Amino acid sequence: MAIVEVSITPLGTADTGVSRYVAGCLRIVRASGISHQLTPMGTILEGDLDDILRVIRQMQESVFTAGAVRVSTLIKIDDRRDKTAHTMAGKVRSVEEKL
Amino acid sequence: MAIVEVSITPLGTADTGVSRYVAGCLRIVRASGISHQLTPMGTILEGDLDDILRVIRQMQESVFTAGAVRVSTLIKIDDRRDKTAHTMAGKVRSVEEKL
Amino acid sequence: MAIVEVSITPLGTADTGVSRYVAGCLRIVRASGISHQLTPMGTILEGDLDDILRVIRQMQESVFTAGAVRVSTLIKIDDRRDKTAHTMAGKVRSVEEKL
Amino acid sequence: MAIVEVSITPLGTADTGVSRYVAGCLRIVRASGISHQLTPMGTILEGDLDDILRVIRQMQESVFTAGAVRVSTLIKIDDRRDKTAHTMAGKVRSVEEKL
Repeated sequence: MAIVEVSITPLGTADTGVSRYVAGCLRIVRASGISHQLTPMGTILEGDLDDILRVIRQMQESVFTAGAVRVSTLIKIDDRRDKTAHTMAGKVRSVEEKL
Repeated sequence: MAIVEVSITPLGTADTGVSRYVAGCLRIVRASGISHQLTPMGTILEGDLDDILRVIRQMQESVFTAGAVRVSTLIKIDDRRDKTAHTMAGKVRSVEEKL
Repeated sequence: MAIVEVSITPLGTADTGVSRYVAGCLRIVRASGISHQLTPMGTILEGDLDDILRVIRQMQESVFTAGAVRVSTLIKIDDRRDKTAHTMAGKVRSVEEKL
Repeated sequence: MAIVEVSITPLGTADTGVSRYVAGCLRIVRASGISHQLTPMGTILEGDLDDILRVIRQMQESVFTAGAVRVSTLIKIDDRRDKTAHTMAGKVRSVEEKL
């Protein structure tokens, strides 16, 4: 199970705001049915790594379809195979228990 | 105003879990009084960029103090100066309004 | 054409050095025939985005095969479709010409 | 000793090319005297972490001075304290020896 954060940023858009593109990406995530969480700095997805990478690939394309010609994408993968349950909620809980 | 995500990971620890180190970092953020949000993939801070970088520098040291000898740190800065209010909540709201 | 930087880091290995795992990843890149460059902080690949992501997926698996149980992977994609030639060499040249 | 990769990207510039801004940043690095290497995806600096962060802070400001109003910056730190010599050249050599 992998937990993956992605942020996709179009470059060279006239406008400094990019929430329009992010909303388009998030619609794709929602349609995929993959567990996710929108944060102020990206979108976090939880599930099978191949499924997640497939969705990210679609998100990437959607930003070009929406008009961008250059896209900068950051993907951070936390892939853990020593635990059967590796979840977004579990990671946060594990930190909070130690505070 | 800057919004900054940071994740700090010790390498070469015998244990694969690193929440103990993350909890130590989060205690430093809390003590700083800087607005922040813990996510499954890092900590997001909001405020003056210099204040935030100073806190991140302390977080980094705390992981060595806690026993690590090698630390990998990722910092992503969104520094926006065309808006007086550039906040974590505003960024999320801006996307959700367009869904 | 995309230029993609990847760095793959095993967590919870007893040793702080990770070059053994990086070398295994690099052998996969070499076998793929994709243009690439090893840097002190990662590996940069140039080519078709889908081809590159397929190779990164193999690199990721190789680190588990080599014994890791948790892997942290960072992928940064620069995907540009307004230029027919978007290359590693061209990007560096473009900066150096302006110095 | 730390090895730090930084990439600084202005958003909302009319032009998709950003090499002009990168060249400005690189001039600051050169003036600092810190060991560095320009790659197709960023600039890698080697030295004392506080010195490096001070230079990155200046690079960041220079992009605003050059006209940007929003800047996205990615900083990746490899901070290792179990070796007296932690260098860019040493990291690459360590991988190449194992190929």
